[in-house]
Amino acid sequence: MSGCNGLSRVDQRRMLKLVTPEEAFRRLQQTIRITKLDFEAVSIENSCGRVLAESVVSSTNIPFINRSAVDGYAVKARDTKNVSAKKPLKLKIEGELFPASALGEFSLLPGQTVYLGCGAPVPEGSDAVIRVEETRRHGEELEVCRPLEKDKNVIFAGEDVKRGSIVLSEGHILRPQDIGLLAALRIRRVKVIRKPRVAVISIGDELTGLERDEPSKTINNYALIISAMASEFGALPKIIGIASDVLSEIVEKIEKALTIAEIVVTIGGCSVGVKDFVPDAVNTIGKPGVIAHGIKISPGKVTGLGVVKGKPIVMLPGHIVSSVAGFHLFVAPLIRLHSGSNILGTPQIRAKVSQDVKAKRGMQAFLRVHLKKIKNEFVAVPISGGSSSLSTLIKANGFTVLNEGAVVKKGDKLSVTLFNEKELLQL
Amino acid sequence: MSGCNGLSRVDQRRMLKLVTPEEAFRRLQQTIRITKLDFEAVSIENSCGRVLAESVVSSTNIPFINRSAVDGYAVKARDTKNVSAKKPLKLKIEGELFPASALGEFSLLPGQTVYLGCGAPVPEGSDAVIRVEETRRHGEELEVCRPLEKDKNVIFAGEDVKRGSIVLSEGHILRPQDIGLLAALRIRRVKVIRKPRVAVISIGDELTGLERDEPSKTINNYALIISAMASEFGALPKIIGIASDVLSEIVEKIEKALTIAEIVVTIGGCSVGVKDFVPDAVNTIGKPGVIAHGIKISPGKVTGLGVVKGKPIVMLPGHIVSSVAGFHLFVAPLIRLHSGSNILGTPQIRAKVSQDVKAKRGMQAFLRVHLKKIKNEFVAVPISGGSSSLSTLIKANGFTVLNEGAVVKKGDKLSVTLFNEKELLQL
Repeated sequence: MSGCNGLSRVDQRRMLKLVTPEEAFRRLQQTIRITKLDFEAVSIENSCGRVLAESVVSSTNIPFINRSAVDGYAVKARDTKNVSAKKPLKLKIEGELFPASALGEFSLLPGQTVYLGCGAPVPEGSDAVIRVEETRRHGEELEVCRPLEKDKNVIFAGEDVKRGSIVLSEGHILRPQDIGLLAALRIRRVKVIRKPRVAVISIGDELTGLERDEPSKTINNYALIISAMASEFGALPKIIGIASDVLSEIVEKIEKALTIAEIVVTIGGCSVGVKDFVPDAVNTIGKPGVIAHGIKISPGKVTGLGVVKGKPIVMLPGHIVSSVAGFHLFVAPLIRLHSGSNILGTPQIRAKVSQDVKAKRGMQAFLRVHLKKIKNEFVAVPISGGSSSLSTLIKANGFTVLNEGAVVKKGDKLSVTLFNEKELLQL
Repeated sequence: MSGCNGLSRVDQRRMLKLVTPEEAFRRLQQTIRITKLDFEAVSIENSCGRVLAESVVSSTNIPFINRSAVDGYAVKARDTKNVSAKKPLKLKIEGELFPASALGEFSLLPGQTVYLGCGAPVPEGSDAVIRVEETRRHGEELEVCRPLEKDKNVIFAGEDVKRGSIVLSEGHILRPQDIGLLAALRIRRVKVIRKPRVAVISIGDELTGLERDEPSKTINNYALIISAMASEFGALPKIIGIASDVLSEIVEKIEKALTIAEIVVTIGGCSVGVKDFVPDAVNTIGKPGVIAHGIKISPGKVTGLGVVKGKPIVMLPGHIVSSVAGFHLFVAPLIRLHSGSNILGTPQIRAKVSQDVKAKRGMQAFLRVHLKKIKNEFVAVPISGGSSSLSTLIKANGFTVLNEGAVVKKGDKLSVTLFNEKELLQL
């Protein structure tokens, strides 16, 4: 059907030269410039979920001094060697220590003890703590009813964290307990990788913003989806707005985006139709321009990649499922590259597939799946539907990519990537 | 050892009456008053991760009209029945339609066609779309080279979402694609459950705030940990500050907390020592006061629960591991009760345990574990250490609870709860 596939048609702007997603991303990695990751200092209270830009070394021992692990009394272990309820060790209670007490307040002589509130310093002259309920008390006299080994109920200085040790490593994603540790080390602000900015441009005469809402037009909702996804992957999304199907408008919006973001994403206008100007726009703006257009994956085939001024431009298709595929294949890994973490937002789970699935010859398949748990086993149910069907993405909670021409049988195991880590909660 | 366990001691304020975590939480559920969950309207852009307060019914069909799924030409399928490259169907091109075009712009007669950009309305008189690359074009004459079945490459009105259907259900946690759907339905604001407020009070003479930082004192870092955890579970934490080990100060802080939060959490001051005033404070404030003190779990034994003015007060122990155990046992489920979702923040994964573990007789065990993936299999490595060891919580990423006296052998499967869904990313 040669005549049906000519290059110079009035109704087709260009031909796609298909490459694999891996090859396309390799080109991108080789062409973009990430000199060094930008960082910023944030207060530890606002650091949860952020990526550490440098390792943290402990400047102190935690705890700072030996402390009691229980409410009890300070004893010298060897003095309790042969004691029992019938033959107790008798000690004189000299006073009380509490967590707020200073270490030097007491120095015990043989026959002396002090009450230790849980967390109190263990005073000189003692090396163990006997629990309150294992003693008898008569006024200022204490009877210890059982033998105690040395160090019993003592938390040692540096036992939890040793001075000079690396407590958190560069690239670690901060969690509540990490913030608690930073506070204990009296660190108030912490260096984290700056969130990469992702600019999102929507292309199409038919689009209108939610705020304007012309009834005859289509709401620009895909930009909301892609930017919310970028946000969940740890980026800072910036919705640039809508460009009409006019080359100059698209050029202008992309140029603006390049000045304020590390990653530029366009939605729509990158197919082969007469109004698909995005690849032309990218080539107009600068070198090398488009580095790949046409990906061996379905849906998502018309996705394109460009680089201008060292920055990546991901041209996502106008169908939402294709667009989401392109996001996971290219935008998510770009965010990770710019975030100093190769793990953000991508929980993967092995699951049995609930029915036969396959990919077309020469094409990988981006398969929407609904991952669910049946009797403690993960099952992936493929969700079929057109590439413009938003409702299939509502039903799905993740995806899997099949190799070119792959045939996978019901019951075979697949690696499912959840759309993001929160999807795990709705399983 | 009767004399070692009397009730009226000067060095022990009270005896614990141990109950199981389940019994304690049952009492709490029976005693607190949650009349009805509070909701608020938020803009859809800010609704990601929030819990829907009402089901959403589609007010419209998506798409609104039949649209082309490809760049191509409108045809009547039955006219293509016997066509081939050698014997093509010839049609006159009457014009072009694009996604922004109105439906009524063309009405095709036999022998006519229009160019349809991807997403363009499919005009009257046609019922299928042939791809550009499957046609030949000579000026205004189109040659269709192959037969087409009816509906081919047509996206039907309502195919994605039918008017009147429930698209998102009450209790659903909103995701990016859901926000896109709401926008498509021209919904700008959405009713979500208000985040429950969790007030956190730290008790102890030894504590100082990070902002004051008296060098001889201990930084109040546990409040940061518990409030960051509350935040990750979908609550709005409010750090009330530090109360000294003085009954009146604790009473005052709890009373303040009850006025601004749905859930009150205290940290420390709830053991049996001479300075442990929190249970007294709770009983002082109102009825019923303390409803459980002493939980059959280790660590976490001295955790207490109270209810005043229908609101829950969780008394967490001063050791951080016990405190985190108490959070997961009581605070997290309380947040869920107040959030309208029983799933927030609690991904559970079955894993093989890497060594023998056991619980004491008559006590459940809160076991810190480091869940990791070895050859696509989840393995839970128990992390041992004292209940005051923050570093063990840095090493751990989840926990499991063993039944009273349970003996679990290496290789047996356990259900591990990750500290929160983000932990999955660091596996």
